[in-house]
Amino acid sequence: MRILITGAAGMIGRKLTARLLADGSLGGRPIRQLILHDIVSPEAAPPHLALTGDLGGSAATLIAHRPDVIFHLAGVVSGEAEANFDLGYGVNLDGTRALFDAIRAADYLPRVVYASTSAVFGGPFPEEIPDDFAPTPQSSYGTQKLIGEALLSDYTRRGFFDGIGLRLPTICVRPGKANRAASSFFSGIIREPLNGLPASLPVARDWVHTMASPRAAVGFFLHAATLDSSPIGPRRNLTLPGVAVTVAEQIEALRRVAGADVVALIRDEPDAAVWAIVQTWPRRFAASRAKALGFQAETSFDQIVQAYIEDDLRRV
Amino acid sequence: MRILITGAAGMIGRKLTARLLADGSLGGRPIRQLILHDIVSPEAAPPHLALTGDLGGSAATLIAHRPDVIFHLAGVVSGEAEANFDLGYGVNLDGTRALFDAIRAADYLPRVVYASTSAVFGGPFPEEIPDDFAPTPQSSYGTQKLIGEALLSDYTRRGFFDGIGLRLPTICVRPGKANRAASSFFSGIIREPLNGLPASLPVARDWVHTMASPRAAVGFFLHAATLDSSPIGPRRNLTLPGVAVTVAEQIEALRRVAGADVVALIRDEPDAAVWAIVQTWPRRFAASRAKALGFQAETSFDQIVQAYIEDDLRRV
Repeated sequence: MRILITGAAGMIGRKLTARLLADGSLGGRPIRQLILHDIVSPEAAPPHLALTGDLGGSAATLIAHRPDVIFHLAGVVSGEAEANFDLGYGVNLDGTRALFDAIRAADYLPRVVYASTSAVFGGPFPEEIPDDFAPTPQSSYGTQKLIGEALLSDYTRRGFFDGIGLRLPTICVRPGKANRAASSFFSGIIREPLNGLPASLPVARDWVHTMASPRAAVGFFLHAATLDSSPIGPRRNLTLPGVAVTVAEQIEALRRVAGADVVALIRDEPDAAVWAIVQTWPRRFAASRAKALGFQAETSFDQIVQAYIEDDLRRV
Repeated sequence: MRILITGAAGMIGRKLTARLLADGSLGGRPIRQLILHDIVSPEAAPPHLALTGDLGGSAATLIAHRPDVIFHLAGVVSGEAEANFDLGYGVNLDGTRALFDAIRAADYLPRVVYASTSAVFGGPFPEEIPDDFAPTPQSSYGTQKLIGEALLSDYTRRGFFDGIGLRLPTICVRPGKANRAASSFFSGIIREPLNGLPASLPVARDWVHTMASPRAAVGFFLHAATLDSSPIGPRRNLTLPGVAVTVAEQIEALRRVAGADVVALIRDEPDAAVWAIVQTWPRRFAASRAKALGFQAETSFDQIVQAYIEDDLRRV
């Protein structure tokens, strides 16, 4: 089979590529070729293909390979989509639509797995968000992802492809450097101490947030690529499960896994601006449909810490 | 003030135009000019303007008049959007986005009132749909309207305009001829008998549906154009109220208003195809937020019958 990954040079794209190369097959079928696309060149050795360019301009070329499975991960991230209105809509909406229209024009029926986000939700929220809770995004990124979800559902209903949208929880522990996203500290308070560096905690320790590891995210994508989609019904966008814990519980997990000396590197440095943003975020998701369909996240934050240690620590 | 109406030649567009001309003012401010746009030429006498063309191509010209209020009613209807995929997306999505982008480019802050629809909802439903129920449309029309809602919210949040989206219930009694929409009979069983014609009832008499008159719809648009939008908050798309009645209650109202001889013109002619479609539709809406914001529909189906008699019967 052939598999296309858009956004293949991103953090999840690289991990998904590595996993597919290691497995050599997907859903029991040998992988003949990966087609890796991004705006910067992804790494690929023959027989795999690396293609670079704007998604809108590349879509027809990518789909001409008639990939059996398409992982659509490409996108401008939330901070950038908020800072640059035209870029966000151009990539996240127009790029997605160009990809979907290229599939429609090719007239076959691939599986499309679409990376959506819990940022489609905007408050006020119930303590736990049920699957039928209305998404009302409060960012351009969330809006663009929600529009992609709506297109995915309609193109699937029309029979243009077999689409599944995945609303990912916050991915933690992200490897690499801290970034300026308000959510950066959820990874930072685990990653920096494990690397012997001090970490700043800008919010209250009793704040609840839902997270899954990069390894779990790759598992979500693989499961979505291979599951029987007929039981999903017309609601093709799934809110995924994760581990809902307080910041204090994150830190306790780190202590259990790595010890008190590591935890001592975390410093409470309240930041009113970060706190104001974080308080607008969802805390827990029921994710009932995704769980019933077999999507599995970690069951404890200890496992999330362990996944980082095994997959990323000292590999930089 | 200047007021733009897109889709001005449609049924609601014509009634809204007539009402604005009769009132001569909106929210206490004299109307200096109506700018009426449609793909077929709307009727307009000076100082009012009639403009004809594709919305995408016309948007910048329309917005160059800097209308203070924009009623965006233009759209391809559900049956047509389902039959012609490209036309539906071209008008309902691209046309809406072109209009919104023209406003953004003009850099001022008009009120935009957007005609959305209860067709953004797709089953399964609770008996009464609450305001925070997730829209999962099962038509391309509903998908396109939902995307317009998402854009409206984001453009409002960004400060490009002050938008309010209105999810209209089924409008009944529609004047004129029956059409081939599955919902046509909701109007037909009232309109045809009042015009001395037989009417076919294709569904069970205990089916519940929510309706409002064309007069109420015009009232919704005028209220949305003039209300203080600050109490709405970030969720700018409102599910509107209507009269939720069974078909039997519709018919009883017709009997009270027009007598048994008129009602005798209705014939039960079950149609499995229509029944299958109708059963996928929402029955009742809580519409709590819209009611709290002062949106008012009729309170009985008798009033809906009366509105048709007063506004449309013998005016054809």
